[in-house]
Amino acid sequence: MQLKIDTSKRVELVDITSQVQEEVRKSEIPEGICLISTRHTTAGIIINENETGLKDDIMDLLNRLVPASAGYRHDLLDNNADSHLRAVLLGASEGLPVSEGKLELGTWQRIFFAEMDGPRSRTVNVTLLRAERYKE
Amino acid sequence: MQLKIDTSKRVELVDITSQVQEEVRKSEIPEGICLISTRHTTAGIIINENETGLKDDIMDLLNRLVPASAGYRHDLLDNNADSHLRAVLLGASEGLPVSEGKLELGTWQRIFFAEMDGPRSRTVNVTLLRAERYKE
Amino acid sequence: MQLKIDTSKRVELVDITSQVQEEVRKSEIPEGICLISTRHTTAGIIINENETGLKDDIMDLLNRLVPASAGYRHDLLDNNADSHLRAVLLGASEGLPVSEGKLELGTWQRIFFAEMDGPRSRTVNVTLLRAERYKE
Repeated sequence: MQLKIDTSKRVELVDITSQVQEEVRKSEIPEGICLISTRHTTAGIIINENETGLKDDIMDLLNRLVPASAGYRHDLLDNNADSHLRAVLLGASEGLPVSEGKLELGTWQRIFFAEMDGPRSRTVNVTLLRAERYKE
Repeated sequence: MQLKIDTSKRVELVDITSQVQEEVRKSEIPEGICLISTRHTTAGIIINENETGLKDDIMDLLNRLVPASAGYRHDLLDNNADSHLRAVLLGASEGLPVSEGKLELGTWQRIFFAEMDGPRSRTVNVTLLRAERYKE
Repeated sequence: MQLKIDTSKRVELVDITSQVQEEVRKSEIPEGICLISTRHTTAGIIINENETGLKDDIMDLLNRLVPASAGYRHDLLDNNADSHLRAVLLGASEGLPVSEGKLELGTWQRIFFAEMDGPRSRTVNVTLLRAERYKE
């Protein structure tokens, strides 16, 4: 399944947890894996806490590790090398278990689409796989 | 399945390879995928070599890229912004193949729970999925 | 399935997209997940754009965040601490959906084996799992 997301800023963390949970519910899979992956090379997937200050801290960190302009070669072609580089650090996919028909999330865990070159219309893939039960 | 881990330091790499391997064995799945994921927002999953000096190098790197205190906004709420930020860089999950009933690990690969805000009692999810055999 | 890759430089991004796509085709799985994982502790998996300048930018970034020599403890044992540390930042696995028998990749997405300590003969695992169709 694909989630459609419209971002509104150049760099933005969009909480997509409830949309992912809805896909898990629709799948009717009791136990398994949920893979969340981006179809873009200037965006990533993050699982962390949704707290306003922390979200700003994450964006500050990415800006400090990968400054917006630093003589990147890719900027001669397309002025978004920083967006690609930040996406490389974040990674393109995360997996989570499905248990008793629900996404197995810790108390503070939320799933974010990490927009690094918005605003744009974006796509996130949510893929559900069923596990067998086994002896424990 | 959930592994319970008691960490003993604020920042610590705990080798959980043998516990993950035991879950793979119990599953009796001959071929498939093993997803290892943390339920926490101040911890990550790393697959790398278990060598004492290297583990210290990894912790030094995280400390250099994300210093413990750097005027983070989240620290006004809860004094562990660095732990969250390091977790974002490490990622919350890794997947490995299962082959011939065993975790497919390279010679030097070990699985670590990367504690970034301990000591605490922690949970790691280990989820096993069976693959079909196909023509090769 | 295992891909065999011969790298030719110490640090190199090898585009393995077509080999991974061939494994997806051979599996004959219509819908599912493709897990790409390295068996090495001095290499990672990246999904991003294959553009010459950008690949150099990625290698420059890794060199800036993790300099080749910086008094690492692991270098006393084996002179490749930087390779391990860069691998930790990149991560050892990525997952992608399979849809209608093909790898579900965005327009610019390519899969790279990120060699951090070559030249060497390397192995990448490609594991395919079938998903059930469900009501949408």
